[in-house]
Amino acid sequence: MGYTIKQIAEALGGEAMGDTSIEIDGLAEPGDATARQLALASKPDYAARLSAGAARAALLWSGADWREYGLEAAIFAPRPRFAMSLLTAMFDPGQGWAEGIHPSAIVEEGAQLGKGVSIGPLSLVASGARIGEGTVIGPQCHIGHDAEIGPGGLLREGVRIGARVRIGARFIAQPGAAIGGDGFSFVTPEVSGVEKVRETLGDRGETEAQGWVRIHSLGAVEIGDDVEVGANTTIDSGTIRPTRIGSGTKLDNLVMIGHNVEIGRDCLLCGHVGIAGSTRVGNNVVLGGKTGVSDNIFIGDNVITGGGTIVLANIPAGRVMLGYPAMKMEATMDLFKGFRRLKRLFGDVAELKKTVSNLPTND
Amino acid sequence: MGYTIKQIAEALGGEAMGDTSIEIDGLAEPGDATARQLALASKPDYAARLSAGAARAALLWSGADWREYGLEAAIFAPRPRFAMSLLTAMFDPGQGWAEGIHPSAIVEEGAQLGKGVSIGPLSLVASGARIGEGTVIGPQCHIGHDAEIGPGGLLREGVRIGARVRIGARFIAQPGAAIGGDGFSFVTPEVSGVEKVRETLGDRGETEAQGWVRIHSLGAVEIGDDVEVGANTTIDSGTIRPTRIGSGTKLDNLVMIGHNVEIGRDCLLCGHVGIAGSTRVGNNVVLGGKTGVSDNIFIGDNVITGGGTIVLANIPAGRVMLGYPAMKMEATMDLFKGFRRLKRLFGDVAELKKTVSNLPTND
Amino acid sequence: MGYTIKQIAEALGGEAMGDTSIEIDGLAEPGDATARQLALASKPDYAARLSAGAARAALLWSGADWREYGLEAAIFAPRPRFAMSLLTAMFDPGQGWAEGIHPSAIVEEGAQLGKGVSIGPLSLVASGARIGEGTVIGPQCHIGHDAEIGPGGLLREGVRIGARVRIGARFIAQPGAAIGGDGFSFVTPEVSGVEKVRETLGDRGETEAQGWVRIHSLGAVEIGDDVEVGANTTIDSGTIRPTRIGSGTKLDNLVMIGHNVEIGRDCLLCGHVGIAGSTRVGNNVVLGGKTGVSDNIFIGDNVITGGGTIVLANIPAGRVMLGYPAMKMEATMDLFKGFRRLKRLFGDVAELKKTVSNLPTND
Repeated sequence: MGYTIKQIAEALGGEAMGDTSIEIDGLAEPGDATARQLALASKPDYAARLSAGAARAALLWSGADWREYGLEAAIFAPRPRFAMSLLTAMFDPGQGWAEGIHPSAIVEEGAQLGKGVSIGPLSLVASGARIGEGTVIGPQCHIGHDAEIGPGGLLREGVRIGARVRIGARFIAQPGAAIGGDGFSFVTPEVSGVEKVRETLGDRGETEAQGWVRIHSLGAVEIGDDVEVGANTTIDSGTIRPTRIGSGTKLDNLVMIGHNVEIGRDCLLCGHVGIAGSTRVGNNVVLGGKTGVSDNIFIGDNVITGGGTIVLANIPAGRVMLGYPAMKMEATMDLFKGFRRLKRLFGDVAELKKTVSNLPTND
Repeated sequence: MGYTIKQIAEALGGEAMGDTSIEIDGLAEPGDATARQLALASKPDYAARLSAGAARAALLWSGADWREYGLEAAIFAPRPRFAMSLLTAMFDPGQGWAEGIHPSAIVEEGAQLGKGVSIGPLSLVASGARIGEGTVIGPQCHIGHDAEIGPGGLLREGVRIGARVRIGARFIAQPGAAIGGDGFSFVTPEVSGVEKVRETLGDRGETEAQGWVRIHSLGAVEIGDDVEVGANTTIDSGTIRPTRIGSGTKLDNLVMIGHNVEIGRDCLLCGHVGIAGSTRVGNNVVLGGKTGVSDNIFIGDNVITGGGTIVLANIPAGRVMLGYPAMKMEATMDLFKGFRRLKRLFGDVAELKKTVSNLPTND
Repeated sequence: MGYTIKQIAEALGGEAMGDTSIEIDGLAEPGDATARQLALASKPDYAARLSAGAARAALLWSGADWREYGLEAAIFAPRPRFAMSLLTAMFDPGQGWAEGIHPSAIVEEGAQLGKGVSIGPLSLVASGARIGEGTVIGPQCHIGHDAEIGPGGLLREGVRIGARVRIGARFIAQPGAAIGGDGFSFVTPEVSGVEKVRETLGDRGETEAQGWVRIHSLGAVEIGDDVEVGANTTIDSGTIRPTRIGSGTKLDNLVMIGHNVEIGRDCLLCGHVGIAGSTRVGNNVVLGGKTGVSDNIFIGDNVITGGGTIVLANIPAGRVMLGYPAMKMEATMDLFKGFRRLKRLFGDVAELKKTVSNLPTND
């Protein structure tokens, strides 16, 4: 897994300087780097720690005086943050899993495995499932009946895919992700308290206690290409049609996608994001950690939310939102400033009332 | 799995019109329906899309002119939303699992399996466990030592039930649900900073750094009949007595129920709800997504909370709550309106102060 | 597992009174206790229920008149809450797992197991993994390639440890915990909307739609001694260096620790806490349930947050915080009071404006 500085610079589309024949077999922070590791120092702050490590070469920001840091070689990449994706892909040691079908894996009759598919120990691929070429299914995974996973995918340990789920190419799922559980959909024989509250915004009326009857989920889940799903994240099946995740969308850990939700392309949903049933999310949307979105609403393209945002109503395309309830980020930042001065405002008004009551009137 | 329009209408207790001999083997949204699928169009908006599909029959709202939509038959049900529960149950294809005990499943000596129990591939039923008649345990599940699951249950793939957990009839658990983990209960040898803060509401005093010593969970979990638990949801064991979930209560995905919590009957807890240790929740309570509830408090019967509500104190029965901190929904709606006008209020008060300081006084 | 009252009192460093030869084989709440269970009644309120149970002996608060409650024996412990940790450890029946390597477990060649290690049914220990002396790995666990777990640990069912993760002594992991998933780290070829918003705090500018490219996680996770991780909690691998959890720190269920995060010693992170990438948390920090912490910030030693706190900026050591956004607890408590009076404040200001506009001026 070793590369020369020259090879690395070429892979990054960057520039190499100094002794470009130095061989590198890993990446490190400047202070931790060994002689065979490339130190990552995209800012002067980071580079200052180079002397604490033993790096002979570093990735530096454009224009850095690499000799000054005692380096023998340097790589300059046009956008260092983007270079990280290429560098980490080059040096990723992976999970160390053996190729092929492990003898303890259960591949049921009628499952179709593409060329070069690997199935890890103690995994189950049910009848009718179709796994695309080169996809790697880790240990202790479950691929349900008639589910489909495209080529080039990677499922980490303990991933669960339910029956009839359809997933595109280059899918990545982290440990314990659960796709295709039943939706959380219940109904009462008569109109329920929740339905009354939604109509009246606050009055549950004289509704009687009733039991909940489940609505089954027949619709499974449909996932595009290049999607990644985080550890222990859950995506529920739709009721009649599939819950949908668009191509290029990435979900972090412990995210919850309700039944019938439709998410567009190239979205990022950070940790603990929850989207309630039947909500639609556009393309290129970024939802910050712990963002919660109500059911049956719509979030437009390119929307961004900050951490902890609670979305109770539709958001038009392009908005940057924050807060509970979600408002435009500037408005919420103003509100947060107001929070810090609210006590003083109460004092000011009390003072004013006193002053005004003592003023002469027109009487 | 096919039914005629006549059979379906009878099952729903509804009315059938037109060619009631048409056979149906699935459900679909109006625009997607094939000739053998029943289109679900409970509102005129949905029915407008019937022409885009090929449905010959639809479920319509009371009084709809079904012929106008080019249909050959129609079903009218008294409460269409409730009809969905019956319809989806009729047409649910399930997970496609084989019946019986899979040869790769491990059923330890001393486990008792009722009549017609199925145990999926790579599942473990520990010694002393008792599984009720007809319960289906999916692949890769874990049923702990001396645990009990009632009849007619369904455990999806990867469900984990700890030792001594007691579960009633018709239990449903979604993938990765974990019941009977140890509670999060730690204590310091001396009074801790957290205890001081709780007494003083804000001052942790001069508490020394101390290590945390665990309190073990001996109490397991007790779950009533007709309970459903969502994907990757966790319910912790009680310390001395069981954590309790009442009959008819449904938990969504990624819900967290702390140790010693007691939840009543027929509650709905939506995604990401968290209830801290020893809190009691009444009957028919509905907690919206991401609702968090402090430890050692009480939520009365019939309470409803909106999404994102943070409950820091007891809630009397029947209240509809929203916000952080939880207040009556109307009060929080008013507050949210105030948030949008707060900046202007600061401006108004500044203006008033200036005006008043320029007014003639009594001096 | 039986002990006499005398033995128990000695183990607690407490005092025994009455018939100290009574044998006890379990713990119970006062109202539920049998004759062979020690009733736990650390307050008069609890002791009042002793008559409803059949306890012959109880743990009481200092100075309680035990005979008054009809008891034959009593134990007085200096700090009853701390006594609970010792008592529950003494009487914990555990999960009832058999010792040794279960025949269905897969221990790959090159894995090193210490003396007395147990590996449960259907678990996998990959090549190069090292398990310390006496550690118990439950059923259906995954220990990745080259991972290391210290001595005296306990992994409940379905725990997932990724490749190269390093864990210290006496580690406890609850069901479904996932350690060492890949971090959620993506980059666009050009500057993204999120990066623009961070610079401008609200304006995403004219950024074009771009796909996300992943940054791989090469750094795994490093966990100290005496750490406990809750059910379905996830800890992501670092990018270049490990994500770090300090000794003595305890994580509750469904907690999410992002890549590159560093958490100090003896922290408590309650249910649904989420910490975004590269944030550092000091020692002895207690984060209440659902606390969310932004990426790339710093939380000082001894900080405590209340439930639902959203931390968007650094917190100095020793602060007690609450709210969204996180502010000092007293300030947020004042703010919450202001919330309840805000509607009236708007009314007061409107009234003042009217009054002032009717006052005589200097003109």
